[in-house]
Amino acid sequence: MYSEIHLPKGFKCAGIAAGIKPASVKDMALILSERPAASAGVFTTNQVCAAPVKVCRAHLAHGVARAIVMNSGIANACTGSEGMVAAKDMAAEAAKVISCEPQEIFVCSTGKIGPQLPLDKIIQGIGTLFESASIGNVQNTAEAMMTTDTRPKVSVAEIVIEDKPVKIVGFAKGAGMIEPNMATMLSYITTDAAVEQHALQAALKKSVDGSFNRISIDGDQSTNDTVLALANGAAENRLLDENSPEWNVFFQALEKVCFELAMMIVHDGEGADKFVTVKVTGAASNDDAELAARAVANSMLNKTAWAGTYPDWGRIMDSVGYSKAQVVEERVDIFYDDTQAVAGGCQSGVAQEDLIKVVSQSDFAINIDLHLGGGEAVVYTCNCTEEYVRINY
Amino acid sequence: MYSEIHLPKGFKCAGIAAGIKPASVKDMALILSERPAASAGVFTTNQVCAAPVKVCRAHLAHGVARAIVMNSGIANACTGSEGMVAAKDMAAEAAKVISCEPQEIFVCSTGKIGPQLPLDKIIQGIGTLFESASIGNVQNTAEAMMTTDTRPKVSVAEIVIEDKPVKIVGFAKGAGMIEPNMATMLSYITTDAAVEQHALQAALKKSVDGSFNRISIDGDQSTNDTVLALANGAAENRLLDENSPEWNVFFQALEKVCFELAMMIVHDGEGADKFVTVKVTGAASNDDAELAARAVANSMLNKTAWAGTYPDWGRIMDSVGYSKAQVVEERVDIFYDDTQAVAGGCQSGVAQEDLIKVVSQSDFAINIDLHLGGGEAVVYTCNCTEEYVRINY
Repeated sequence: MYSEIHLPKGFKCAGIAAGIKPASVKDMALILSERPAASAGVFTTNQVCAAPVKVCRAHLAHGVARAIVMNSGIANACTGSEGMVAAKDMAAEAAKVISCEPQEIFVCSTGKIGPQLPLDKIIQGIGTLFESASIGNVQNTAEAMMTTDTRPKVSVAEIVIEDKPVKIVGFAKGAGMIEPNMATMLSYITTDAAVEQHALQAALKKSVDGSFNRISIDGDQSTNDTVLALANGAAENRLLDENSPEWNVFFQALEKVCFELAMMIVHDGEGADKFVTVKVTGAASNDDAELAARAVANSMLNKTAWAGTYPDWGRIMDSVGYSKAQVVEERVDIFYDDTQAVAGGCQSGVAQEDLIKVVSQSDFAINIDLHLGGGEAVVYTCNCTEEYVRINY
Repeated sequence: MYSEIHLPKGFKCAGIAAGIKPASVKDMALILSERPAASAGVFTTNQVCAAPVKVCRAHLAHGVARAIVMNSGIANACTGSEGMVAAKDMAAEAAKVISCEPQEIFVCSTGKIGPQLPLDKIIQGIGTLFESASIGNVQNTAEAMMTTDTRPKVSVAEIVIEDKPVKIVGFAKGAGMIEPNMATMLSYITTDAAVEQHALQAALKKSVDGSFNRISIDGDQSTNDTVLALANGAAENRLLDENSPEWNVFFQALEKVCFELAMMIVHDGEGADKFVTVKVTGAASNDDAELAARAVANSMLNKTAWAGTYPDWGRIMDSVGYSKAQVVEERVDIFYDDTQAVAGGCQSGVAQEDLIKVVSQSDFAINIDLHLGGGEAVVYTCNCTEEYVRINY
């Protein structure tokens, strides 16, 4: 699937089975920059957060990084001081292999909350990762990040800066416990562009707000959500920041990669087979629009109705109404794609068959106009099927 | 099931099939007081609310009532001015039959949001309801209120006030779109006690806060939630208010009836087969405790874990962490009934089998101590099974 993709210049990656998951399933990944890379990171805002998130936050202050080491299968969350030691040991071991400072290593974990990491397997795995790392090992790396994901997730952008080819390659995993504000969502972005570190952090934050922070699968924000970006400068452009003439070319490419990865996560939502865009316009404020959109996107009654190909706009009215957004019932218009279901808070008179046609699609939009102001927001979500319940038994 | 129960003195009730639902399923109910009864009501706080809720709110100001007329199958919500006319016509028709003011009639609807009521069937149904009303018609009345409920819900309390027997009989229905703050939850309480109207309203509000407002099935607050109480004084006690020596006897009986009905709703949650009490103690405030308890109770990952008899305390830590309650990870203790799963934010070391034993039960508690203060809250909820998804397709 991604076997033809190469990383940006100066990067290598690997994905292996280290024995954390049963049955030789891949469960450790490495992303390595041959030279120190400017680094940026955005993390979960959950008050209960994993040991590796705490370590990443601390290491981010260092500003430059050499590698990301991650495992799937165990989240190393709610693991106390033993978990902190394990996360630090992961970083220290990787630093030893490539002779850098431990602060130049990011560590991530995803999987079950509670158990301690099998540190011996992790340490052995780190050795194997560095041995097998290569510029073309993208498929294995993306696979090693997966938990309940059904497929790996990689996005690529290629741009030109100062006549020099610049590449961005991003990795992500979903697929449950997903309502990032900055969830167990992990994403790694690599680029060979030379980017000033504070500019990279600001650009990543803004890109995440428009992408990963706009998706919701089950409304459960994880303890481990982490997005990291590494820019190693191997493209040899002059250092980019917000004042560079070609900044927007870079920023838009970064945004595109983040957005594509976020959409891949929703498309691969646990048990989901429909992708739903919930867009609210005409709200009293952008915050209100977001509250209304999230209420609709997270309502189990809406998600199960979509699963049943049941265009129950009454449930949408209900969830808009109990959201904390200001709502005047008589002003609300609701469209399924472009087909109006609700006009001024009541049924539009459209034929039910026309609405069924829309919700039969694997990808459709719910467009809600509150007619109260200029506030707008969009949330990307998916349906909830019986399979979701089975996956989480 | 409830065929032996009689209403309090001076009340009659009926439940019939008026043709709103298909296949002669009962779909209209009546509760009638022979004399004007002091009335109290608590309604949904959803900004999108049904026409009958608007009518009830207006009629409650009248202070006394003679009857409650309700239909199931159609919610008469999001039905605009036509829906308001229908709700008022329902009240007017009932008032005509018993020669009272329309303001003395409460009207309620539950079912699908959006469609208009078939007013001709409703008007005909009202005639049949009054003809068939009797003091012992409790089972039919409770059945006519049902939508996705699998069984009718009635609770009875009998007390003595001034040596006079006083009775309270309450009716309720669930079973989806249930996170009342004040959902489509409907409940009617009848009593033959003589109760001063403002005292009755205050007592009902307080009873609802401790019962119906503490339950959540799917986190979706309905457009139609309504609890009404009618006290007709047929027991001929002196008028009760908060200063009466026997007030607490009455109030505790009212609380008991509300609580029993609320618990029946959770026990009959759509697709649910486990009743879960989520109790949070040691929070920085009662509000914080409630935020944490609701986050745990409404998390799909927790609800599906309970369905799978999977004691995944990590998901509970996760949801406590993303709740808006203040949480210090290292202080959190979590118990499954009395079995401690989490000590200071980490696994307690208890055997997994012991936790599985608890979540195998059809009724268990999740007890969470945040160790930050004296705040407490309890929320009653249920698991989420594949059947929930099928019901809402």
